[in-house]
Amino acid sequence: MNIPDKVVNRLTMYHFILEDIRDDEKYISSTKFANLLNIDNSQVRKDLKYVDNQGKCRVGFEAKKLKKKIEECLGFKKTKDVFIVGAGNLGSALAKYDSFKDYGLNVLAMFDKDPKKIGTFVNGKEVFDISKIANLTKRLNVEVAILTVPREYAEGVANYLAGSGIKYIWNFTTCILDVPKNVKVWNENLIGSFLQFTNTDKEA
Amino acid sequence: MNIPDKVVNRLTMYHFILEDIRDDEKYISSTKFANLLNIDNSQVRKDLKYVDNQGKCRVGFEAKKLKKKIEECLGFKKTKDVFIVGAGNLGSALAKYDSFKDYGLNVLAMFDKDPKKIGTFVNGKEVFDISKIANLTKRLNVEVAILTVPREYAEGVANYLAGSGIKYIWNFTTCILDVPKNVKVWNENLIGSFLQFTNTDKEA
Repeated sequence: MNIPDKVVNRLTMYHFILEDIRDDEKYISSTKFANLLNIDNSQVRKDLKYVDNQGKCRVGFEAKKLKKKIEECLGFKKTKDVFIVGAGNLGSALAKYDSFKDYGLNVLAMFDKDPKKIGTFVNGKEVFDISKIANLTKRLNVEVAILTVPREYAEGVANYLAGSGIKYIWNFTTCILDVPKNVKVWNENLIGSFLQFTNTDKEA
Repeated sequence: MNIPDKVVNRLTMYHFILEDIRDDEKYISSTKFANLLNIDNSQVRKDLKYVDNQGKCRVGFEAKKLKKKIEECLGFKKTKDVFIVGAGNLGSALAKYDSFKDYGLNVLAMFDKDPKKIGTFVNGKEVFDISKIANLTKRLNVEVAILTVPREYAEGVANYLAGSGIKYIWNFTTCILDVPKNVKVWNENLIGSFLQFTNTDKEA
């Protein structure tokens, strides 16, 4: 099924809410989701149609069943292996972020060019020399890289990744990457997030 | 001027691109922005109208002037002081993320409840006992907190922040926070980002 980006985003948040539900809460209403996320009730119901779940009038959605349906729909069990490129502060923090695994994101290894870091382990993930990445990408069939190198190296490294067979780059740097069109880039624009939500000067 | 969220987000990315422009490139075209970000040319031109910048036909936008206008429009120089709550891996990585300062985000201090962390410094920022936050929020007039505590503490800590006078919570945990409505929460949903951009099964 085709699911728009924004719906994928909200479905993960409904799942976060379902994670926190008490064992004795068998049902959850669309209003609860809507209130917690500060969105419209009708939006929640529209989103949940994508996961093919029937809510019951006045009772709501069966919590456990809905949770499972979201997991199936978004493929939490279909694990994707990823590399982290840049074993600095942010890269290491992401390597230690154990929640990723629950959502199908498995960090296989890390890469850096600093001889002091190469051969060390971060949360059980070995740091390899960046020159090994083409070989390992092919051997381990990895398509996704998380880019956390310093800004000034970002573009060079991104193109090196593209040439190594990486198909998706999750870009945590503030450099907008000029890479071949067959590589998909997602800019995790933290600065943009900060400015959006603290911007009191905007449309509702 | 009212600027919609998405436009704020794209304007920051245009600014990232302008950061990387060579000294001899006096003009930049909307096409360059559009190609790098994989969006429509017309979208770029529409966005740039918010910063009141006149592009010249065939020549494009004056790069330095445009950069400055975006800075003024988004308020990069109006620094906002923030606290980081949770001095773990991610919190510490964010405290070390020096780019924040260039965009008006100044990390003043960190908070934790671990006695081993309290009194230490991360990138020059002192880690205080979480019980000190109400006092410091008022004294230093801080409104924004970055929440990076473990998931199971997130809701309790968020409500404690709300009671301490914090008005904006930038939530990096996977807990959807149930806080008073006068507190604005921005969920930095990393899991959602990952699923969105690696989801090949979706609408274009």
